[in-house]
Amino acid sequence: MEIKTSSKFIAELIGTFGLVLFGCGAAAIAGGTTLAGTSGLGLLGISLAFGLSVVVFAYAIGGVSGCHINPAVTVGMLCARRIAAKDAIVYIIAQFAGATLAAFVLSQILAGQMGGFTAAEWAYGSNGWGKGYQNEYDMAAALIVEALLTAIFLFVILATTSKLGNSTMAGLAIGLTLVLIHLVAIPVTGTSVNPARSFGPAIFAGGKALSQLWLFMVAPTIGAIIGSVLWLMVHTEDK
Amino acid sequence: MEIKTSSKFIAELIGTFGLVLFGCGAAAIAGGTTLAGTSGLGLLGISLAFGLSVVVFAYAIGGVSGCHINPAVTVGMLCARRIAAKDAIVYIIAQFAGATLAAFVLSQILAGQMGGFTAAEWAYGSNGWGKGYQNEYDMAAALIVEALLTAIFLFVILATTSKLGNSTMAGLAIGLTLVLIHLVAIPVTGTSVNPARSFGPAIFAGGKALSQLWLFMVAPTIGAIIGSVLWLMVHTEDK
Amino acid sequence: MEIKTSSKFIAELIGTFGLVLFGCGAAAIAGGTTLAGTSGLGLLGISLAFGLSVVVFAYAIGGVSGCHINPAVTVGMLCARRIAAKDAIVYIIAQFAGATLAAFVLSQILAGQMGGFTAAEWAYGSNGWGKGYQNEYDMAAALIVEALLTAIFLFVILATTSKLGNSTMAGLAIGLTLVLIHLVAIPVTGTSVNPARSFGPAIFAGGKALSQLWLFMVAPTIGAIIGSVLWLMVHTEDK
Amino acid sequence: MEIKTSSKFIAELIGTFGLVLFGCGAAAIAGGTTLAGTSGLGLLGISLAFGLSVVVFAYAIGGVSGCHINPAVTVGMLCARRIAAKDAIVYIIAQFAGATLAAFVLSQILAGQMGGFTAAEWAYGSNGWGKGYQNEYDMAAALIVEALLTAIFLFVILATTSKLGNSTMAGLAIGLTLVLIHLVAIPVTGTSVNPARSFGPAIFAGGKALSQLWLFMVAPTIGAIIGSVLWLMVHTEDK
Repeated sequence: MEIKTSSKFIAELIGTFGLVLFGCGAAAIAGGTTLAGTSGLGLLGISLAFGLSVVVFAYAIGGVSGCHINPAVTVGMLCARRIAAKDAIVYIIAQFAGATLAAFVLSQILAGQMGGFTAAEWAYGSNGWGKGYQNEYDMAAALIVEALLTAIFLFVILATTSKLGNSTMAGLAIGLTLVLIHLVAIPVTGTSVNPARSFGPAIFAGGKALSQLWLFMVAPTIGAIIGSVLWLMVHTEDK
Repeated sequence: MEIKTSSKFIAELIGTFGLVLFGCGAAAIAGGTTLAGTSGLGLLGISLAFGLSVVVFAYAIGGVSGCHINPAVTVGMLCARRIAAKDAIVYIIAQFAGATLAAFVLSQILAGQMGGFTAAEWAYGSNGWGKGYQNEYDMAAALIVEALLTAIFLFVILATTSKLGNSTMAGLAIGLTLVLIHLVAIPVTGTSVNPARSFGPAIFAGGKALSQLWLFMVAPTIGAIIGSVLWLMVHTEDK
Repeated sequence: MEIKTSSKFIAELIGTFGLVLFGCGAAAIAGGTTLAGTSGLGLLGISLAFGLSVVVFAYAIGGVSGCHINPAVTVGMLCARRIAAKDAIVYIIAQFAGATLAAFVLSQILAGQMGGFTAAEWAYGSNGWGKGYQNEYDMAAALIVEALLTAIFLFVILATTSKLGNSTMAGLAIGLTLVLIHLVAIPVTGTSVNPARSFGPAIFAGGKALSQLWLFMVAPTIGAIIGSVLWLMVHTEDK
Repeated sequence: MEIKTSSKFIAELIGTFGLVLFGCGAAAIAGGTTLAGTSGLGLLGISLAFGLSVVVFAYAIGGVSGCHINPAVTVGMLCARRIAAKDAIVYIIAQFAGATLAAFVLSQILAGQMGGFTAAEWAYGSNGWGKGYQNEYDMAAALIVEALLTAIFLFVILATTSKLGNSTMAGLAIGLTLVLIHLVAIPVTGTSVNPARSFGPAIFAGGKALSQLWLFMVAPTIGAIIGSVLWLMVHTEDK
């Protein structure tokens, strides 16, 4: 059955909206311990929020748009010739729109916190590096981590969705890879590997989140290309 | 094979009973740190208790009743013409009965705590908002969160169980969506997205839980209708 | 292909050995925070240790013995006429042997802790109730919790492995049910729902663990029968 | 389709690289609480990092190389005659290379921590035992734990990938077994069950990690042979 481009656009928009709402929302709203003393999500819970969002939307919209919900994934898919350039542009616009909308909605929800919300709560949704950000890693570490982890992400995506993969389990494996990426990288960059996911919170947070945004555009994109090449080295049939 | 309506009624009753017993039970009995100092479930463990309950019953009673175990889901299914109005009423009665029974059993178990149980332990199972409830979000935030998250929930349910979804993984994806919803929303409303799940604890907790119950009837129902329309926008074939 | 009874015996022995080693081992060795200050497993990690053990062995030995690894499950299966009485006896002997062997191995590992291990570390593997045990619930609560949760466990087992279930996902759903059962019941009884799992640690721990052992023999067995009847009410074809 | 040996080599190298980067990386970078006070991964998060890595690569490269990413697994597969000796050597070289490369990359990332990283952060990635290591278990406990858990690991691997297993779920079950192994054994040895995973961090950490490395070569290898024999006892057809 042929899927209309408009359906793919809406699917990618909703999927990226969900990823940012669940992932950044979990970090900003529930990351820390509650007022009543119940333990917050911590690094594990936040990692699961991002990764399980991909699991969920992979099975919800995978049959509609393939569930990229990440411009770096779309770029990697383009390299591996799994998506047409024309469609790729539509996907990327939808992803940035969805992420921005989610960040806006999240800002509205946080504004309903009666005691007022702290800068930290909102900043937690943004990516960054250096003095005052998470465990204070330098820019070189941020670059390595974002490029390398996006490369592994694309490698797993292309491998699990190839003829050698298991189509039933691919969505689960891909989402769990994003869990793993977050388990390692939150203390370094807050974990992006997704330009749209960084863009949304940054334009609402402003300041350093905005001035450091370039790295989360560049590094994941380069990583995605590397990951795509890596997979083609293992499995030439997909070219 | 034709499934009898009475079987569907029992299945929905048991499923909703299980959801409330496991979800609210985990929150009230095991949410906080134990007397012996072992770390309690916190927001992550409570989120998993609610979401994994849906996973489990989706595979247990999905083949009997479709495993709605949530009146908002039944309303959304009605909008998408996946259930007859007559059956929907039977389902909703079973759901409220199961949730109420679970809340009663939970109150009996908590009464067996020899040192007595605190108000907080029981209140934790109830939904609410405002001063003194969780992280003290206002009513507008509660409304947005409950309607929006139920909309996403229904979108995922309709998508994963459509012809474009994967029938083996649908139950897992739907339950993990409820995990995600809880990862974001416990500090705001305690997370309902399910009128029956709010009703059970509220009638035993009374007070504010009861006077605020209307929101957890109205918002998830509206959200379910929105989510159903959203999915039909993406995929017209299901109409 | 016909599976030999001796193979089923070894499979049930290894499976129950693994369940007790992973479950009670996680509780006793890794439940609390480490000497170096890394957060211990807490209630969530211990719950996952028990439940995921069932997931793992369901896929490993499900094709050999059906992976009961729990005398209450074998009794429930007997009620539902899914196993012959002769085989059931072989299974139950293997389960008690495996659990006892695991408790012995665990006692040897704990003896290797150079600073000596505390009574609490070992007792954590045992089930119990009342003054000084976990959150100090009374015997009535212990009885309700163990019987009720075993009933739900058997209901899910029989449902997911019936013709109405999904054979690929049944093992996952059953193991996640055991996770849920632990998420609720550790503060009440330490969670048994399995006479063999209680027997192993109790004979090494002695004292109260041994004198209270009867409840974890009786309540799960009664619960298993109730759960079996409950499922037959929903679905008569399996008789 | 015939897979080239060079593809298998690259796949095993990338898989083992990923396992060590995600597993040891999570422990060293995110194991403890962050500077900003967000709860670190703790024993549960670290266990998931190692185990989910196996899940992810099982579905990514399982169709290429079978995803051993562990010399002990390759030895066990050799015993069960599931891999040729010639291939086994290629696999083991790739595994040690991948693990060493990952440990090198991890050391570079940690070097980017602006406040400097503590000895503990790096040591956490290494395996060991005795005074000053984790919860201070003696060598006998370390030997038992590593051999026994590797035996169970191989038993599950051979069982789930046999004709009696479920090919869709095998990768998940195997990875969750590694989660369980970590849930029990981190306080004892830091959990190896994989000579390559211990080798990588040890050559960068040096000192005790290097002088104790022999145990993590010997014990998992012996355990793998035992596990392989155990499975053949249950199921003779696989010989």
